[in-house]
This record gives sequence, structure tokens and C-alpha cells, in this order.
Amino acid sequence: MRAENAQYAFVGALIEDLVRSGVRHVSLCPGSRSAPLAIACARQPGLRSWLHIDERSAAFFALGMAKASREPVALLATSGTATVNFAPAVVEASYARVPLIVLTADRPHELRDCGAPQTIDQVRLYGEHVRWAADLAPAAADESMLRYARTTACRAVAVARLAPAGPVQLNVPLRQPLVPLADGWSPDDALDPTTPAPANGRGGDGRPSVERPLVRAASVRRAPAPHEVERLAAALRPARRGLIVCGPLDDPAFPPALAALAAALDWPVIADGLSGLRFGPHDRGRIVRAADALLRAEDHWSDLAPDAVLRFGATPTSKTLGRFLERHRAALQVVIDDAPLWQDPFSSATEVLQADATTTCEALAGALASAPRRGGGASGWTRWWIDAGARVAAALDAHLDSAGPFFEGRIAAELAALAPAGTIIVAGNSMPVRDLDSFALGRPEPLRVLANRGANGIDGVVSTALGAAAATGAPTALLIGDLSFYHDLNGLLAARRHGLSCNIVLVHNDGGGIFSFLPQARFPEHFEPLFGTPTGLDFRGAAEMHGGRFEQPRTWDEFRESVRAGFERGGLRVTEVRTDRAENVRLHEAAWAACLPLPDWQTGARRAARRALQGSADPLLEAPAR
Amino acid sequence: MRAENAQYAFVGALIEDLVRSGVRHVSLCPGSRSAPLAIACARQPGLRSWLHIDERSAAFFALGMAKASREPVALLATSGTATVNFAPAVVEASYARVPLIVLTADRPHELRDCGAPQTIDQVRLYGEHVRWAADLAPAAADESMLRYARTTACRAVAVARLAPAGPVQLNVPLRQPLVPLADGWSPDDALDPTTPAPANGRGGDGRPSVERPLVRAASVRRAPAPHEVERLAAALRPARRGLIVCGPLDDPAFPPALAALAAALDWPVIADGLSGLRFGPHDRGRIVRAADALLRAEDHWSDLAPDAVLRFGATPTSKTLGRFLERHRAALQVVIDDAPLWQDPFSSATEVLQADATTTCEALAGALASAPRRGGGASGWTRWWIDAGARVAAALDAHLDSAGPFFEGRIAAELAALAPAGTIIVAGNSMPVRDLDSFALGRPEPLRVLANRGANGIDGVVSTALGAAAATGAPTALLIGDLSFYHDLNGLLAARRHGLSCNIVLVHNDGGGIFSFLPQARFPEHFEPLFGTPTGLDFRGAAEMHGGRFEQPRTWDEFRESVRAGFERGGLRVTEVRTDRAENVRLHEAAWAACLPLPDWQTGARRAARRALQGSADPLLEAPAR
Repeated sequence: MRAENAQYAFVGALIEDLVRSGVRHVSLCPGSRSAPLAIACARQPGLRSWLHIDERSAAFFALGMAKASREPVALLATSGTATVNFAPAVVEASYARVPLIVLTADRPHELRDCGAPQTIDQVRLYGEHVRWAADLAPAAADESMLRYARTTACRAVAVARLAPAGPVQLNVPLRQPLVPLADGWSPDDALDPTTPAPANGRGGDGRPSVERPLVRAASVRRAPAPHEVERLAAALRPARRGLIVCGPLDDPAFPPALAALAAALDWPVIADGLSGLRFGPHDRGRIVRAADALLRAEDHWSDLAPDAVLRFGATPTSKTLGRFLERHRAALQVVIDDAPLWQDPFSSATEVLQADATTTCEALAGALASAPRRGGGASGWTRWWIDAGARVAAALDAHLDSAGPFFEGRIAAELAALAPAGTIIVAGNSMPVRDLDSFALGRPEPLRVLANRGANGIDGVVSTALGAAAATGAPTALLIGDLSFYHDLNGLLAARRHGLSCNIVLVHNDGGGIFSFLPQARFPEHFEPLFGTPTGLDFRGAAEMHGGRFEQPRTWDEFRESVRAGFERGGLRVTEVRTDRAENVRLHEAAWAACLPLPDWQTGARRAARRALQGSADPLLEAPAR
Repeated sequence: MRAENAQYAFVGALIEDLVRSGVRHVSLCPGSRSAPLAIACARQPGLRSWLHIDERSAAFFALGMAKASREPVALLATSGTATVNFAPAVVEASYARVPLIVLTADRPHELRDCGAPQTIDQVRLYGEHVRWAADLAPAAADESMLRYARTTACRAVAVARLAPAGPVQLNVPLRQPLVPLADGWSPDDALDPTTPAPANGRGGDGRPSVERPLVRAASVRRAPAPHEVERLAAALRPARRGLIVCGPLDDPAFPPALAALAAALDWPVIADGLSGLRFGPHDRGRIVRAADALLRAEDHWSDLAPDAVLRFGATPTSKTLGRFLERHRAALQVVIDDAPLWQDPFSSATEVLQADATTTCEALAGALASAPRRGGGASGWTRWWIDAGARVAAALDAHLDSAGPFFEGRIAAELAALAPAGTIIVAGNSMPVRDLDSFALGRPEPLRVLANRGANGIDGVVSTALGAAAATGAPTALLIGDLSFYHDLNGLLAARRHGLSCNIVLVHNDGGGIFSFLPQARFPEHFEPLFGTPTGLDFRGAAEMHGGRFEQPRTWDEFRESVRAGFERGGLRVTEVRTDRAENVRLHEAAWAACLPLPDWQTGARRAARRALQGSADPLLEAPAR
């Protein structure tokens, strides 16, 4: 660690222990007050600096890096509103449980709150939306202050990582001179607490080596207590109509653990598009395909009443599924979540288990295996769900494959089909994430679908995608609507600046497409000015300003060609598909009509189904497929 | 007020009393949760709705409207990170004392903090950065709840207006249905507290007419107590080397009041570019021209030591002036400010008077007039400052007029000279506001120069300018650098959407020009990547995407022609001038060298000056001018 003066030594120790604690990236913006931190970052081996101009985009870039790498990422801004521009991403990170270390450079205490330029109250700036906020002491570089700097760094990373992961703020007061001018301080003035001790000297064993942080913090998954597992297993065993529901959840260990639990229970699984369950080599045999479409047959919900539901992950993307869970409040509904965040907007939970999802799956599968259910093999209930899902999916596929204009649902399906194994698909909020949930049904190749579902904002999505690409180097696609794309147009700057590739599919329906699905659409005098809100923007100029290639395919073949080329050639590419908002509602309705209701849900079959699901015989499965 | 259901009645009452309290504009963004508020705004006579897509830009647009109109402006966003994107402008409004009514739509209490989509903790979202935050009760529409809605609106406007003016947050929980569907509620169900009472009936006199708010709130200027005025007048009278320093301050009554006080004291006035004193028909005879340049003769500061300083307004833009005030801590320095905000980063105040600037000027001038100083007419001290300023200004003008490449200082001077009377010039932070302060020295025509000097951010400046144009209809120019322009490119959307004119002068030096003036410039290995930060952006595409005309003049004649055409033809125009950051530093230094030091500051003259200023004779003024 190089340091010309005490302030640089202090700040250098802070950054060094962030890196020793596992931080590999910092997303930062130019500024004068933040210079000591920025220079310490630039000097720190093992840390990559990503410079941005717009702090809002910088913060979402960091969010995308942290989300995709599943590791804490640092953020740095100079004092003033620069730090406030981080707030949208900080709030998203808080609800999406993404670890961020937010470094805010500040004036020293004696220059606060007295009209000094570019100085605002930054203490606890993000309010309740960080897991921890520390307003640091002014820099000093004796041993105890270096220890304080390093401890603070270690602690920040530990807190950011601990479930529920999230952002922390370190507010760092910095004095003039802000540049690395020698002030007479030398490393000999202070025994750095991470300096290896001489063999025979002071410190002795127990002193850390230079490779490790001053304080190594271990965070472990919250495992459910054995008696809770036993109790839960006992409660689930008698269920005859069990259902597993998995909302957004991003843990690579979860899919195989969940699959094993589903096998042990022999229950069908409704897997959100963001659950990580739809793509990959794990056993996907009990996942109900096209569940969002299937559940739209609301007339038949009484036939499908579960008696027990195990819920994992965040609130599902599908509104239909949410209402389904709300309707079936009579069932035992167990919410498993490792944070005291009470994921139950449906007010239908009967139990909440505050434990890690993966660990709970493993423990529960183990407990169930020790006393397996009678019979074995897929129960009629489970087979019915799987089969019905498969049939709905087949009908949906056939419908999508038929010739027709650009349909937003099919765009999502095509993108998920074209993406090479290992691709990260970032979904914009509002319609793209819903269309992926409804129409991108699964593949054995591993794909990751990510979205900002902490607060479901349309802001910062371009930067999130570029951050994901930056941190992983994986092929990255972004499915996004025009309002969300416009909202973070500034995010595109990072692509050229940092040589990043991102294959953007821009669904341009000139306005807020989701509103056409909402009751607002029935109030035409207010609709376009307040909700539809067309912008009339032609994005070619903006895309090209940022060095992107801009394509406007007119046919599905041209669309596929452009998207494929985006994956093959890399770079920044925008494939813009023009659609119509009102037509989009009709096309969605046509898609549901093409696959629902299943033929054997009609009249007599419906009654048969109800009997079948209540009894052990299963005539429904014997009915002709269509 | 039209209302189909109780929620619409409640929300309608809230909006109606905002308008009856003086709110004329609302800047809002599309959303579903906010629909009742948006529709109530659209229906409200006397309120103009300005729709934006990017909430950050929307908030700065509202800030610009409120700043330019000097009236509270409302802001509305739907729930989630939409509201967080308001934060940068809210913070700026807080420090710049701009009244904003921030309406944040929220889920109702029962859907908070349980994983409901697009729901974040919005209670006290802006922390310490609002003057008041209220989390409203769920809507209901009996008489007492309508009274509560109206009172809350009146109170919000009153608090936002009261010095120090600033933002307030009303967090409004809204339930389904969010659209105006009849629920059986009718206006007959509740006696609206603002319904005119029948002549013979209940309510009687004292009940408000429908034209006025439920509670009329009066806010008055804080006048200094007479004994304080007398005491201050007595303290100032003996001063022989008095100085008035006016920082940023926007009160149309201030310039004449200050001019009268300066006359009563016969003191010179150093007037910041944002003080409102440089342009207009008031007596500008005691304003020291080119004070920022004059004070750069730091070697001569001991000759210019004041014995008393009266300070008005926010922290001056000129760093040189700040250091000058800091150096002369031995003087009586009185800070006059109507808020408990302690405007003294120099730590040089000896007195703080918490009173309105204009009222204090008037009271003090009155007290001084009742016992005038001996002599009368300009003292030698005052004449020296005025004359020295005039000579520096003349030298500076001559230097700027000489042929040469594009110099950023001259761009500022030319723009201020070209602007028609009544123009609002919005200055970007960092260099533009400093260049206007240094080089735009004054005209008798009224011009307003505005900048976001609350927190001095480079964010949201484009939207601030467009908001100023929208609220006033005045010719509006924006002087801005490329990083700041890029930061709020999204703000340009409002120009076409709302048919606004803005004459933008874009100083494109491809990066952060101010850093070349700072010590960072001496550290080349870090400079360009961390501070200079070139973006390489060609803004033509972005300007044209938003329907703007984009010009790149190559000569000063072409520059003037483009700027004049912008004022004459209206619409959105970007006149981009390319400059070089390093060259810009040299050109600034050349400008200072051309006017400093004044010839008679040399050797013997310097000694003479010191004697002159200490005595009553004034040989300096008799010396040859140059």
C-alpha cells in the first residue's frame, strides 16, 4: 500500500481491506473530494475500477455486477448530489438483497452544515435502505486508526454479505490536500496492523498475513433447527395436493436442492422465470411448464385447490399466481425465507420459516427420505399438473410459431431460445419480465434470467445489464421496453468506454405498454396523456452516439438473424422491434385463448377432474390429450 | 371537484387545496399507483400538468419551475424507486431553498413491507432533506377527513414557502381501485368543509368561499428587531473600510434595497454573478465590476483589508472571494440570513443576524439615514474599489475582444451580452457558473442568472433550465459543459413534448474541465482516467433525437449568429463550442495576466495605496489610470 500522507494511508488501508475481504470491482464517478479514495482504488491490486459519469447509472452498474457475480461491489462518488444519485440503486439493492459497499466522500466535520460548496448532509443518507451506515472519523494513520479503517472495511463487507445481503454506506470525511502530497508521514510512523510480524518480535503469531483482511468474517447460511425440520416434514407428509412455489431467487445451489425436495415430496413445482429453476441441467421433471398461462383458467381454480404450499423466493412475477395463492388461503402455506422480511403480500402464509432456502430444501428432503411417503412415483395430482402444463406449453408454442406480426410474448420466447448456454438475460420491468415469465418456459442449457425485482423499477436497467456483462464476461442480453430504455440511456456510455458487449432487444411500443392491461385503459380521456405517454423517440441516434449497432428487423427471420449476430459478434447491439400497445393486449389474449382452457376442463371433464384430484384414480390423465 | 368515489374525493380535496394555496404546476410521471393523484391533477382547473418519463429529470424540471416562478411547484411519482429518483432534486431544493410539494404515491399500510411489488419504505424517504414529511392516513371522505386532506395541503404549501423555503413530502397511500370507479360514495355523504354555507344554514360566516383554501397561511419576512438594527448601525458607522458581499440570492426586492443600503453606508459592493445585482435598472454605481478578477491580485490583499464586512446571500461562487473573506477574519463580519443555516464555511463571521436580507437592508438604511456619516459622497476607499474594478473590467473586455480561439470565459461574457432583456440564463455548475461570475459583469437590462447552487451538482441542469422556461415563458438560455449536459440528456425530452424553447450553449471540452484547475492536474498518471474523464460523445444525434437544432460554430461571428438565432427563433437549439481543457487553463491565466496587477499596484504605488486607504487623502486615485 503506497501512501504519501496520513490521509492516503488511512484511505489506502480501508480500500485494501475491502479487497482482502473479497471486493473485486469498484464503480466510481469523477470528483475532487473523492480523489483520495479514487486514487487508492486505482492503486489497489486486485481491484478493477469502472469509471462512469452519471452516478445513477454507475450505481445500477455496480448493482448488476454484484447481482451477476454474487459478490459485494464497491461504489464511490464525490460529495453532494452525486451521492444522492446512487439512491435508486441503493434502494433496489436493499430490497433485492444485493451486497453493495457505498463509499460517499464527504467534507470533514468542521466544514459540514455551514454553506460549504457541494456539501450536503450525507450521514445516514440512504435512511432505512442500507443494512449499516457509518460516518467515519477523520483520517489519521497511527496503528489504532489504521486498525479502525481496516476493521470498518471488513465489517462493511461482512454486513453487506450477511443474509439478507444488501447495501452499506461508508461516509468518508476527507480534508485538503486531496491529492497525494507528502506531509511528512511515513509508514514507519505507524505499525500497520496487517504488517507481518518479525519472527522474534512484537506481534508474534496470530497477527494476520498481508494476504488476508484484518478481520476475516464468515457468514453462514441460516439452517433450520432439526426439530423445526421434523415438525415441518410431519406437517407436509399428509398433504395430498401439495404445491411448491418458487419466486425470484438466485442461488446456484438451489435448483438441485429444490429438485431433490420436490422428488422427496413428489409435488409439482411452479417456478418463476427468475427462480433459476427453468434453465439448467438439474432435474426439471416436476416443474409445471407454462404455469402462468395454465393458472389463467381462473374458472377452474377450485379444481386446483392445494392443501399445502411451500413457498421459496421473493414475490412471484405472475400476478395470476399471486391471486391464486391469495385465493387458497385455506391451505397450509409455508414461507421459507432467510430474512425477517415477511414475503407475503397475499396475506396467505400460515407459517414463516426464517431459514436459508437451499439449506431448508436439503434438510427437509433428508427428513422426508428417512420416512418416505407410501407409494412413490408421481401422484395423480402431480402428474396432472405436469401434464396439463406440458399441454398448455405445447399449445402456446404452436400458437407462437404461427405466422403473425411481432408479438411481445414471442419476442421473449425467441430471445430465450436463441441465447447461447451460459447467457445472462436481464429483463426490464413492467412487460419484459412478465413476458419472459409467461413465454420463456425452459431449456436444459444453463441460462440466468435476472431482473431488478427488489422494487420493480424501470430505472437503471441498461446499466444493470452492462454491469452483469462486466463482472462475468458472460454473453449478456437485455430485453427492455422503450420507456425503460430511455430512462437509462446514459447507461449505454459504459459499453464503449469499457468495451462491453450487450445484446439488447428493445421492444418499442412508444409508451407504457403495461398500462394497456390495467383498468386505466378504460378511461380514454386520461389514458394517453397520463399512462400511455408516447415519447415518439427514434433511438437510432442515441444508440449510435454510444457506438452501438442499431437494427430494426421487419420479419421474425430478420429478428433472429440480428439477435444471433449480436451474440456472435459481441459489442453493443440494439435490435429494435416496433409493436403496438393496444394490439399487444389483443395478441396476449389470443395467446391465452389458443391454449386455454384445456379441452378436458370442459363440462363433464371438469367434474371428473375434481373427483380425480380428490381421489386416487386419475381419469383426467386418461382423457385424450386434446 | 369531481369524484366518483371516496378515494377520489379525498385526493381531489388535497389537490384542490394545493391549487387554492397557490400551486400552479405539477411535474409528474406515469404510474399506476399514482393514478388517483394524476387524474385529480389533470381534472383540477388552474393546475397545469407537465408529464415526464424520467423522474430525476421531472424533479429538476419542477425545481426549475419553482426557482424561476418563486412559487411552490408540485411533483408526483408512483411508488417505488420512481420516488427515489426525485431525491437529487429534493436535496438541491433543500439547500437552495426552493419550495417543492413532493407527492409520493404509496401502497396502503397493510401492503407495506411484506414483499408487495414496487413497494419500498417511503416514509420520511428524503430524511433530513425536507422541511416536513407527512405519511397520510388512508383516504376517506367524511367531513373530517376532507378537512384533514385540505389542511394537509395548505400546511404543505405554507411550510414549503416559509423561510427557509424548501421541499415537503406528502406520502399518499392509495388502495384499489385506482381508477375513478363509482363506489356508491356521493358528495352528499360528506359536508365538504369548503362548501359555501347556505345563507340561513349551518356553517354561517367564517366558512371559506370556494375560491380560497381551507386555511390561508400567511408567511412574512423575518424583520430584525429595531434594537438589533440600531446596534448594527452603530457598529458599522465607525468603519472606514467597509465592504458589502452578496452571494447567490434571488429576491426581486433585494437589488434596490441593497443599493440604498450601499448608498447609506457608502460602501463598495462585491456582487456574485447569482446575486441578482449585476443586471437590472437599480443603482449599480457601487458595485465593483470584475471583483473576482480584481481579488486575484492576492499579493495586494493586505492593502485591501476591510475593517467591516456585511454579507448577504449564500456562499459566493468565487473561490478567490471566499479565501479573501477567510484571510480577513480580523474584520467585523456580519452574516445576514433568514434561516438558521449558518452560511459561513470560511469561519470568519463575527456576527450572525437571522433576518430577511431585503428587510434588513431597508431597516439598516433607515437607521443609518437618521444619523448620516460625516462628509457624504464616495469615500476614497469606495472610489478606489469602484475605479479599480472598472479598470480591471476594461482591461478584461479589451482582452476578450482580441481575436483568438474559443475561450470559455468569453463564451460566458458573449452569452450574457447577447441575451435579450428579461432572459433567464441558467448556468451549469463547475465551470459555467464560475465563468459567468468572472466574465459576465453586468448590464442595465434585467437578466436573471440562475444555477443550482444548493449542492452545486452537475445533475439535472438541463431540466432545471427547461422548467424555468416552462414556468415563466421568458427567453431562456443554458450555459453548460459536456459532462453536465450528458448527465441530464434525458431532460431534453421535455422540450419537444411540451413545446418549450431553450437556447443551449454547450461548452464541449470532452470531460471535466474544472479538474484542470485543481491540484489533480499535477498527477498525470491518474488525471485522465479519474478526473479528466473524456467521453468522446458527439451530441448531435442526441439533440436531434429530441427535435433540437444542433450548431457547431467555428468562429466568434458564427457563434453569435447561432445564439442570436436561438433567441429569435425559439425552439430547442444547441450551439456547441469545442474547447480544450488544458488550453482553457492557459486562456484563463492569460485573461488574468491581461488585467492584473493594476499598474499602480507596483512597488511605490502599493505603499501609497496603503497610506491612502488608511488616511483620508487618496493619492491613488490621482495616479495615472494605467
